Amino acid sequence: MFTVNENYLKLPGSYLFSTIGKKVAAFESANPDKKIIRLGIGDVTQPLAPAIIEALHKAVDEMADPSTFRGYAPDLGYEFLRKAIVENDYKARNCDIEADEIFVSDGAKSDSGNIQELFGPDCRIAVCDPVYPVYVDSNVMAGRTGVYDKATEVWSNVIYMPTTAENNFVPEFPKETPDVIYLCLPNNPTGTTLNKADLQKWVDYANENKAVIIYDAAYEAYISEEDVAHSIYECEGARTCAIEIRSFSKNAGFTGVRLGFTVVPKDLKVDGVSVRDMWARRHGTKFNGAPYIVQRAGEAVYSEAGKAQLKEQVNYYMQNAKIIKEGLKDAGYTVFGGVNAPYIWLKTPDKMTSWDFFDFLLEKANVVGTPGSGFGPSGEGYFRLTAFGTQEASLEALERIKNL
Amino acid sequence: MFTVNENYLKLPGSYLFSTIGKKVAAFESANPDKKIIRLGIGDVTQPLAPAIIEALHKAVDEMADPSTFRGYAPDLGYEFLRKAIVENDYKARNCDIEADEIFVSDGAKSDSGNIQELFGPDCRIAVCDPVYPVYVDSNVMAGRTGVYDKATEVWSNVIYMPTTAENNFVPEFPKETPDVIYLCLPNNPTGTTLNKADLQKWVDYANENKAVIIYDAAYEAYISEEDVAHSIYECEGARTCAIEIRSFSKNAGFTGVRLGFTVVPKDLKVDGVSVRDMWARRHGTKFNGAPYIVQRAGEAVYSEAGKAQLKEQVNYYMQNAKIIKEGLKDAGYTVFGGVNAPYIWLKTPDKMTSWDFFDFLLEKANVVGTPGSGFGPSGEGYFRLTAFGTQEASLEALERIKNL
Repeated sequence: MFTVNENYLKLPGSYLFSTIGKKVAAFESANPDKKIIRLGIGDVTQPLAPAIIEALHKAVDEMADPSTFRGYAPDLGYEFLRKAIVENDYKARNCDIEADEIFVSDGAKSDSGNIQELFGPDCRIAVCDPVYPVYVDSNVMAGRTGVYDKATEVWSNVIYMPTTAENNFVPEFPKETPDVIYLCLPNNPTGTTLNKADLQKWVDYANENKAVIIYDAAYEAYISEEDVAHSIYECEGARTCAIEIRSFSKNAGFTGVRLGFTVVPKDLKVDGVSVRDMWARRHGTKFNGAPYIVQRAGEAVYSEAGKAQLKEQVNYYMQNAKIIKEGLKDAGYTVFGGVNAPYIWLKTPDKMTSWDFFDFLLEKANVVGTPGSGFGPSGEGYFRLTAFGTQEASLEALERIKNL
Repeated sequence: MFTVNENYLKLPGSYLFSTIGKKVAAFESANPDKKIIRLGIGDVTQPLAPAIIEALHKAVDEMADPSTFRGYAPDLGYEFLRKAIVENDYKARNCDIEADEIFVSDGAKSDSGNIQELFGPDCRIAVCDPVYPVYVDSNVMAGRTGVYDKATEVWSNVIYMPTTAENNFVPEFPKETPDVIYLCLPNNPTGTTLNKADLQKWVDYANENKAVIIYDAAYEAYISEEDVAHSIYECEGARTCAIEIRSFSKNAGFTGVRLGFTVVPKDLKVDGVSVRDMWARRHGTKFNGAPYIVQRAGEAVYSEAGKAQLKEQVNYYMQNAKIIKEGLKDAGYTVFGGVNAPYIWLKTPDKMTSWDFFDFLLEKANVVGTPGSGFGPSGEGYFRLTAFGTQEASLEALERIKNL
């Protein structure tokens, strides 16, 4: 008789964004006349940039011609894309990363979820709290997280590193030593980040403790401050302790195009075993590459035209971030983030819970945000708004919130 | 200190097609003047059909316009695609499958590799021998396969079901009862399949033993015989015991486009736990959908124009299968398959091993095939040629083989 992976049964409720989707759908069907503004899911709204559209059309035409048609892609991704990544994201920042350390994928979510598979079942994970839920959930599914306490929403075997206004959103080194440390910087959902000196301390800590850092840099394109690293490989010693996950979703609007990559340096080893070779084996066995046309679109992200157009797109969203942040401040809210990331993190008023504020905002202002508690226990009492809407929507949402 | 998933270290050598790729590259660089014909990897060579190219261009244009731009796709895939699948692949064959039992993915390889994650660590798997290596390898990575015997190339905890000329390529029910049964039908690599009556016996067997069947129907489009089922759901009782994995790679040439889907019926439960809901949770947590433009390409596969064009493409490849099969017969080889699948399975001459014949064919005829032993111990002494080349290449390859 077959049995199921019982770890799945430990997962509480459903995935955060599914729950939000259901709540919004229910409100919409009950209030068909209300115009809802969605600043909840971190999904982009601007269309793909012209340079990317051009590359997509060109690649589609290649697929129509027997002499240029492409079948299975190389395991690690096409070299043209991996080289563009190395040149622009790494060499240009003096990071020592080679093309055969880059693994092109269908997006950062898959990679963030799958990467834990490389590690031993007894590895203890540490996460910033609050953070993107996939890190913990994928480890729950793998049986690493212990027992869930429904009241506190805490897993017994996860090391939570509170990242809140109290510590100025700089997590402290945990009391217990973790084996796998997830860092999402700039952080989703708080929109805050560490400066390079603070990040260097984490690299040193990981090397001293022989821990591995899973560094999710999906929001790298939004960094505006000089003293913030764009890649963890800007820090000394990161090649022996860090895996970096990157996305094209937020810098190029690829949420519906699907492209990302993960960097696993050859120097990341434990007992002589190369983690890079393990990831290569996973890619070769359980994945068949990102579409050729999408990899060509990724290449266009690094073209001169692409870079210029995408800089404008990022600026557009960051303008929204400013509108939301300043507007909320004017309305008396306490707000964080929005400087190096497209997320605004606010304290809920009158000590409302995150979900109560979600319902309040949905019902009274018809604005959808994301409850902070959905990102971890220390997110309770906070709320996330994204800058990924249109400028018009961001302005109107703020008008509505101010008039509450 | 972090540790690695030690199951990965048990994997012998590297993935079959990587090894072939390396051997061919070495031969090429040593013999730059030789024109190699590749009938090894099951990769298509015909360009995408016009209806698909048109759908891709149209979808790319939609991504350029703010009013039609699409971000994150729905978790299960777009409804337009899931409905087309249900109508054409299931309702048209009187299979009772609903759109919310379809999970659109980036391809059958990912799904075949990931599906084992839903099952308990002690589940005993059974595979046809020889078969597509991903089933066993993904279970090795999950620690289900026991100890590997290098001499026999057998895993102690895998139930092998020999599928050879001796049993006319119809596997017998195993002596030990399996929990998870992988069936790839039409079979890769043998190119043979079961008739519907024999498949029904497997469905009955699975229901009696409360086993789950993972039914990989990637080659369904090549079925030419009337008494062969195109879907396992044509069999009575399959909704309570079978998961079906489908690909667009072989019926529509999507090996570089990446699209597939998996069907998990709501009736597939164990102890009240819905396997469908577990897969939905995995999709929601570790995957972010196939690209919108690719899902539109998938929809075009089911358009009237698309169906007509793809039927021609399949006929083209099956014509190659005929050329190869008849040519090999004329040359004195013993051959199988090629009737319901684009694979020709031949007995190596003079009791050569599969890899010896691989080297022989590469060196003497400059033709690349796939050694049967790469697909499992019972594949030793066999060799696979694919019909996915061009007609010209298939004809020339056969000329060369005949002249050996």
